[in-house]
This record gives sequence, C-alpha cells and structure tokens, in this order.
Amino acid sequence: MPAASTSRVEAFSDGVFAIAITLLVLEIRVPEDTRHLAHGLLDLWPSYLAFGVSFLLVGLVWANHHVMFEHIRAADRPLLFLNTLLLMNVSFLPFAAAVLAAALRDGHGERTAVVLYGGTLVVGGVFFNAIWEWARRGHQLLGTSIDPAGARAVSRRFLLGPALYAAGTALGAAVPLLGLLVFAALIVFYWLPVTAR
Amino acid sequence: MPAASTSRVEAFSDGVFAIAITLLVLEIRVPEDTRHLAHGLLDLWPSYLAFGVSFLLVGLVWANHHVMFEHIRAADRPLLFLNTLLLMNVSFLPFAAAVLAAALRDGHGERTAVVLYGGTLVVGGVFFNAIWEWARRGHQLLGTSIDPAGARAVSRRFLLGPALYAAGTALGAAVPLLGLLVFAALIVFYWLPVTAR
Amino acid sequence: MPAASTSRVEAFSDGVFAIAITLLVLEIRVPEDTRHLAHGLLDLWPSYLAFGVSFLLVGLVWANHHVMFEHIRAADRPLLFLNTLLLMNVSFLPFAAAVLAAALRDGHGERTAVVLYGGTLVVGGVFFNAIWEWARRGHQLLGTSIDPAGARAVSRRFLLGPALYAAGTALGAAVPLLGLLVFAALIVFYWLPVTAR
Amino acid sequence: MPAASTSRVEAFSDGVFAIAITLLVLEIRVPEDTRHLAHGLLDLWPSYLAFGVSFLLVGLVWANHHVMFEHIRAADRPLLFLNTLLLMNVSFLPFAAAVLAAALRDGHGERTAVVLYGGTLVVGGVFFNAIWEWARRGHQLLGTSIDPAGARAVSRRFLLGPALYAAGTALGAAVPLLGLLVFAALIVFYWLPVTAR
Repeated sequence: MPAASTSRVEAFSDGVFAIAITLLVLEIRVPEDTRHLAHGLLDLWPSYLAFGVSFLLVGLVWANHHVMFEHIRAADRPLLFLNTLLLMNVSFLPFAAAVLAAALRDGHGERTAVVLYGGTLVVGGVFFNAIWEWARRGHQLLGTSIDPAGARAVSRRFLLGPALYAAGTALGAAVPLLGLLVFAALIVFYWLPVTAR
Repeated sequence: MPAASTSRVEAFSDGVFAIAITLLVLEIRVPEDTRHLAHGLLDLWPSYLAFGVSFLLVGLVWANHHVMFEHIRAADRPLLFLNTLLLMNVSFLPFAAAVLAAALRDGHGERTAVVLYGGTLVVGGVFFNAIWEWARRGHQLLGTSIDPAGARAVSRRFLLGPALYAAGTALGAAVPLLGLLVFAALIVFYWLPVTAR
Repeated sequence: MPAASTSRVEAFSDGVFAIAITLLVLEIRVPEDTRHLAHGLLDLWPSYLAFGVSFLLVGLVWANHHVMFEHIRAADRPLLFLNTLLLMNVSFLPFAAAVLAAALRDGHGERTAVVLYGGTLVVGGVFFNAIWEWARRGHQLLGTSIDPAGARAVSRRFLLGPALYAAGTALGAAVPLLGLLVFAALIVFYWLPVTAR
Repeated sequence: MPAASTSRVEAFSDGVFAIAITLLVLEIRVPEDTRHLAHGLLDLWPSYLAFGVSFLLVGLVWANHHVMFEHIRAADRPLLFLNTLLLMNVSFLPFAAAVLAAALRDGHGERTAVVLYGGTLVVGGVFFNAIWEWARRGHQLLGTSIDPAGARAVSRRFLLGPALYAAGTALGAAVPLLGLLVFAALIVFYWLPVTAR
C-alpha cells in the first residue's frame, strides 16, 4: 500500500473522538430516588467532575490531532496503526472516568482510580507523540506547511504533555485530589491560546 | 496556531450532535412486564415527551450551528474552546432529559427536573452566543457572506434564545408543566421558517 | 435564511443513521448463565431477528435517503425540519426493535410489539415522502439531475412504501408472525436492484 | 438507480466503524466494590483483552475497507447491500466480544464463545471478499488506479483472511486459548506494513 491521503483517517478519527466524548455522559446515572431529587443530583458531583474534565481533555486531544494532521500529508501503514492505538486509548477514557467517579463517590480507591486515569493520559500522550515522531522522521509524511526545524519545535511541545501527566499521576498516587487538580490545570493551560503557538 | 479552516470543526460538531441526539433513545427502557405490554408502553409517555422535545431541540441547535458556521470562515483557539463547551452542554442534555422523564413518571421532583432541564438550555444558549460574539468581534473570524450590521442583527436574534429559555425555567420553577410548555413552544416557534430570516 | 447547500445535512443525517444502526446491537444482552452458554445464545434468536431486520431496514432507508439527496440541491427550513422528524423516527427504531425482541422472547405482547414496530415504519415512510414532496413542489429544491416527470415517478415509487408497511402492520395486528414476514419480505424486495430503477 | 459515487458510502461506513469500535468500551463495567478497586480492576483482564483485540481488528477492517474503496469508483445497489451486510457484521462484534469476555471471566463456555467470535470474523471476511469480487467482476465498478491483474492479486490476498480465521476458529473449538492466540497473531500480522503490499 502506498502512503494514502489522510482525509478518511481524519474522518474516522473525528468519528471516534466525537463518540468517545459523547459516551462520557452515559456514566452519569439518573438518581433512583426522585423524592429527594435535588439532593440526589447534588450527590452526583463526582460524575459531573469526571465528565467535565474528561470532555475538555478529549476535546483538547481532538484539537491537537487536528493541528497535527494539518501538517501530515500522507498516511502509511505504521501511522494508521499508531493512530488506531491512540483512538483505542481515547475510547478507553470513558471507562477510566467512570472508575474515577465511582471511587470519588464511594470514598474508596481514589488512589487507584487517579493512577488509572492519569496512566491512561500518559499512555495516550505517548501514542500521540509516536504518531508525530513517525510522521516527521525524514520529513517523509509531512507536507510543506512546516519545515524540519518547525517539526522539531512541535515535538518538544508535544513531549511535554505525557511528562506533565506522569508528574500529575505520581502526585495523585500520593494525594489523589492533588493529582486531579494537576490534570485539570494542565487541561485548562493547554486550552489557552498562548500554549498553542 | 494560526486560525484554521472550519471544516473539521464542523465535522466534529456534527458528529457530537448526531450522537447526542441518537443517544436520547437509550433512556426509553423496554417495559419488563410484557404481559401487559400495551399498558406498559403507554406508561412511558414521559420518556416519549422528553425524547421528542429534546430531539427537536438538538436538531434545532444543530441547524442554527450550521447557519452560524456558514458565516464563520476561520477557527482560532478560543473559538474551538467555546465550541467544545457548547458540545459539552449538548452531550449533557440526554442526562437532563432522562432526569425529566424520571420525575414526570414518578410524580416527584418535577420542579427540580424542569429547572435542571431549563438551566441546561440557558447555559447552552449562553455558549452559543459566546461563539458568535467571539467570532464577530472586529469581524475577525467572519467571512464576506455577512457584514457587521448583519452580524449584529444575528446577535440580537441569538440573544433572545437564552433569555426566553430563562423565562421558561423561571415559570417552570413555579409551575413545572408550564415551563415544559414554554420550552416546547419555543422549539416549535424557532423551527418555523419566518424566525430564521 | 436562504436555502443552504445540503452537504452538512447529509453529513448529519449519515451520522444519525450510522449511530442508530450501530446502537441496535446494544439490545442483544450477554446471557448471564455462561455454564450453558450455547443454549443461552440460541435463546437469543428474537434479538438476532430484530437486529438483522432492523439493520437491513435502516441501511435501506439510508440508501434511499442517499438517492433522494442526490436530486435535492438545496435545503430550506421546512426541509430541515422534516428531515429532523425522519431522523427522530430512525432513532426511535432501536427501541421498537427491543420491544419486539422482548415480546418474542417472552411469548407475550407480540401483537402490540408488531403494531409498534410496523407503526414506526409507516410513520417513517410518511416523513420520507413528506421530504420528497416538499422538495419537488414547484421543483424548487431539486437540481437538474431529474425533471418534474422523473420526480413524479419517484414519488409514486416512494409512496408505495408506507402503504405496504401499513398493510403489513394490519396483517401483524391479526397474526403477528405474518406481519413480521411481510416486513422482512418488503426489506429484501426493496434492496433488490430492479426496484431501484 | 445508476451506479453512484462512493463518497457517502465511505462516510456512512466510517461512521459505523467508528461507532462500533467505540462501543466496545461499554462492555468493560466499573467494579461495584470500590473497597478493593485495584483487585477488581485486575480481575477485568478478560474484558481488556476482548477490547484490545477487537479494537485492533475493527481498526484493521476499517483500514482495509479504506484501501478497497480507493479502487472502487462507483457503488451500485448490490454493492451497497453487501456493504450493509459487512457493516452489520462489524456492529455485531461488540456483542461477540462481550460474550468472549464473560466466558473468560467465568471460566465457562470459552469454547462456545471463541467459536462465536471466530465465526463472526469468518463471516465478516466472506462479506468483505464478496464486496471486492462484485466490484471487480468485469472491472465494472473499479477505477483506473488498478488493473484486472492487480485486482486479481488483491483478491488472492483478501481471500486468505477468512480462511485463516476459519482455521483459528477450528483450533479454538478444540483449545479455546489457542484460537484466541491465532486471532491475535493474525491481527498483528495483517497490521504489519509488509502484508499490505
């Protein structure tokens, strides 16, 4: 197979991102006791938190995937494979988010849940970087919208992601809430326009 | 990141709209007692109502999103972020609809449920307006299909949405059924061709 | 709003069709007793039947929607509204299919379930025809790929659909299995190449 | 209906592939006992295994579908029908994967579950080949990107798939774990760049 155009890769990836991000809501269950509905809805705060953080995160990964594929002009088999691994990681996130919400709600297993969640982010960051590194090796799959020096600069910025998520996960293994705060701060920080330069 | 073309933003948004609108049906559960199936199906009227109203609403937001992005020619980072917040709101709606159906079915908590549902609509309307206001500030992200005066006229029409939903929510906090009627009337009214001018 | 191009309407519709058709599988539940797994899997035949018939049906409606929109060159507000009603009907089908499977499995309520399923098909056929009739009135939304006489011929063929589904539903109200057979026969018949002329 | 362009077929297929692959995660359920969360998460290994293998498999079928439709320039009615059967098979896979995970977890019915899973792969391979054989008969639906000899070579490679899956299923009927290993090996093997030549 010669390297193929990336339009169907982007369409397929957009589909998986859109579905994974929308499935996040299925984890928020309607309270069974409607007699104290307001109370029951407030008790669901861990689910809202997991939903909100995860939604902003998947939206961010989608936006960065978007940026990355504006520079990638062709997809070969290994790139498709690495992209499939990234999509697998994104699809797994609703499960990690549901585990996190359950642990926060029950007040048990927060440490384990934060490590699972943070670990999922780290692995996703690694796959994301692997796609970029594969595409820019020898500049073979990149287009003319970026030069090798620019591609190297993007690499440095992308590599920071999994490193910071790993630090957040390590902190979360000690103090779960702190890890969560780091994840939320990173997501907000990465959404800011200045970081996208 | 320079402002990027909007085609992948539209594709991703279309995906989320399509999934959120289709997930609404998952809230309608098959009656367990098939011996009195006709009766059991009729008892599900609150679910049908929540499904129908929410489906027409999401379809309407999609159609207006469509109109809005015909005028937006480029997406910068803040616009992507605001769009992600709107999509988060749309994804949350199946949960609010399920809560509404449960409250109507049980005859408890209708007030809370209508306020949650209406509040979701108000917040969605605010995000929708925020996208438009950001895009038209200095006319920076708009194309030539609309001029500043036209963009201002669209603003006035868009701003009416959250105001009317807020009024419906306030009414619904007093008389739940009245709030619901206002939401349904607004959705039908906004679907009428004349309002789209 | 002037009449807009149909590409995003098609993308959104394709999304809803794709999701509704894929959600059909969620109704097939894994047998709880894995000690007699082969037996448990065979007992699920009503679910497989509802899945298979509904999948071919939604695929067929998608294919015909595809054909219809090859002739429609612009979408105005009423057309978007009618298309949203059709998509609502398609999204409702997984529920009707789940009710059908439950009734067949329990041996109760088959009559009610077949009427619900057939009624859903009839209503969908009516919406489908309404889209076409609106688009071809005065030939306003049609392109040059078809002339008024051709559009009238398509009308006659499309109108046959809800009439035949209604006949199947009436038969099914008397003898449920007969109604199901008629639905299956119609779907196979409509998939045959000759009927698409 | 004359043979139509394939862009909406690809968009619809991409949607179904994207949804089916993302629904795979719904089968992994959050452990109910969060007091021993780490333990509970480890016990879910059969679900992770079924998720991972099935995800790579659907991603592979998508990638090959992509390659196949780069050569198909038009879709007639029988091709749409065969493609719908393939999509039905892909949509069914999350169920087969859930059955496999349940059997591995309970330690019962692994033989049945592996045969169901492998049988699903074999049937999918048959549909995949049927699409290609129909498209290349008389070279009627193929474009100029491939000649009849090239199309015949692709056939030989595609035909190997269901044969190898059938062998894996036969092995799995004797020794379930061996069948699973064969499936995993085939998926990895087919993802390798060299096999795509």
